[in-house]
Amino acid sequence: MSFSDRLAEAVRRKGPLCVGIDPRWESLPKSIREAPLPHPTTARLQAVAEHTATFCVKVLELVAPFAGVVKPQSAFFELLGKWGMHAQEAVLNRAKEMGFVTILDAKRGDIASTATAYADAAFEGCKIDGETFPVWGADSLTINPYLGRDAVEPFLVAAKAAERGVFVLVRTSNAGSGLFQDLNCDGKPLYRHVAAAVAEWNKPTIGACGLGDVGAVVGATHPRELAELRAELPNVWFLVPGYGAQGGTAADVRAGFRSDGLGAVVNSSRGVTFPFHPDDPDWEAKTRSECVYRG
Amino acid sequence: MSFSDRLAEAVRRKGPLCVGIDPRWESLPKSIREAPLPHPTTARLQAVAEHTATFCVKVLELVAPFAGVVKPQSAFFELLGKWGMHAQEAVLNRAKEMGFVTILDAKRGDIASTATAYADAAFEGCKIDGETFPVWGADSLTINPYLGRDAVEPFLVAAKAAERGVFVLVRTSNAGSGLFQDLNCDGKPLYRHVAAAVAEWNKPTIGACGLGDVGAVVGATHPRELAELRAELPNVWFLVPGYGAQGGTAADVRAGFRSDGLGAVVNSSRGVTFPFHPDDPDWEAKTRSECVYRG
Repeated sequence: MSFSDRLAEAVRRKGPLCVGIDPRWESLPKSIREAPLPHPTTARLQAVAEHTATFCVKVLELVAPFAGVVKPQSAFFELLGKWGMHAQEAVLNRAKEMGFVTILDAKRGDIASTATAYADAAFEGCKIDGETFPVWGADSLTINPYLGRDAVEPFLVAAKAAERGVFVLVRTSNAGSGLFQDLNCDGKPLYRHVAAAVAEWNKPTIGACGLGDVGAVVGATHPRELAELRAELPNVWFLVPGYGAQGGTAADVRAGFRSDGLGAVVNSSRGVTFPFHPDDPDWEAKTRSECVYRG
Repeated sequence: MSFSDRLAEAVRRKGPLCVGIDPRWESLPKSIREAPLPHPTTARLQAVAEHTATFCVKVLELVAPFAGVVKPQSAFFELLGKWGMHAQEAVLNRAKEMGFVTILDAKRGDIASTATAYADAAFEGCKIDGETFPVWGADSLTINPYLGRDAVEPFLVAAKAAERGVFVLVRTSNAGSGLFQDLNCDGKPLYRHVAAAVAEWNKPTIGACGLGDVGAVVGATHPRELAELRAELPNVWFLVPGYGAQGGTAADVRAGFRSDGLGAVVNSSRGVTFPFHPDDPDWEAKTRSECVYRG
């Protein structure tokens, strides 16, 4: 089944909540952070990464009844170095086993065979001498369009071959996103040019659900643009960050949906995964109830 | 010493060649690829990553007399999954021990604390409970500007704190780079707006050598733009990819330099690291002689 149809199925079953997995060590529950770490410096970061994976898997279990989509943020795993990459693999594997649709939020972008290397890592795995070794095995990947056509196309080719998807950064949720995205290029802002390219790339991939495998990242913090883009790109999935901790409200994100209730997955990271104070012994119940509320 | 001054010192001592470390397995010398790999699938990718690190360290040793700057391409390590990250760490550590100035070519870009996580991974390391654990320990990192001001600034803050540098993608070397970079925004192409922002960010970081810590990536495949940008950004280091295998010539890259011979490092990846056919038993001599020619 195509990526877009699998995503539609997940949203129909469990709603449009995408749980962002952003494991900042200092925000993890005390009970996890205070599990004993071995002493030698080299082994300590490995232990931190293992505890981080434990926390992330626990979050997957807590949110599974309420969300069908999860988005691990690669930066927080990379911050834990090579051991963080062991954790990233473990979390993605567990999410897959549990039936989540996964979005690896790595915002990759490079050219030609270098882009293919990132795409193979994200999707099918590493191909060596006719054998394929699984790497991240994600269902989709966020990508950055700045490098242009031949930087995006290798991701599209790899996604197509593996029945996976991409989400292209169009209008990001941060306050300073306008520096380049809002520049007036031949009469319309840059992000609208990127949106038009996304619509083009998406067109040949539209599945049974009426949406395609080439999505767009559009922040909840720009509700007017979100509505405009929804009208302009009726067949494009939106990944909508910025809901909750970044200030986007439920009314703000409504504009991202189509009338059939599909078309958007709304990410909440800090809101769902860290509704508790790190010292709170009752963090599991709070995470669960936060999901019910969002869902 | 500031990043820019360390880079100037390396270029004065050994010239402007930057050796790109892009370890594509199928291009590695037969003698390395054919070293026995253990049989179980899980262990094979680990062995591939270890052999890859061995090749990269051998390249460092071969090019050390001729080049002071190396640029590992993160995508080819990531393609080898978590084990590739062990290899990336080993190669960066060895490069540092050998005195190279390192550019981690990862083209990262994200917002706020997520950008800080990437920056800390690249530069100072992971900070936990008052302790800092080294991660990549690179001297500089390539970054993507599309997300805007508050996506770039965390990298600048982290670079400043650690006396490291960044290279912001301005005009990339690929044929399709113009899709967005060439759009006419208020009378000038997008990449010139990015270049102007780079000049701003670079200004407070200018070191004794007259150049700063916030560089720009400008492809050798656009010699006219390279000359224009050199004139417009006299204090900005350029990382110039696209020389050699991608078609840029020695005459093309000349425009990237200042009259004092500083201002650009010229990357060659396939040209230097893979001048040989994979089956060639004499690959070490060929790599060495290619460096003499480029240097």
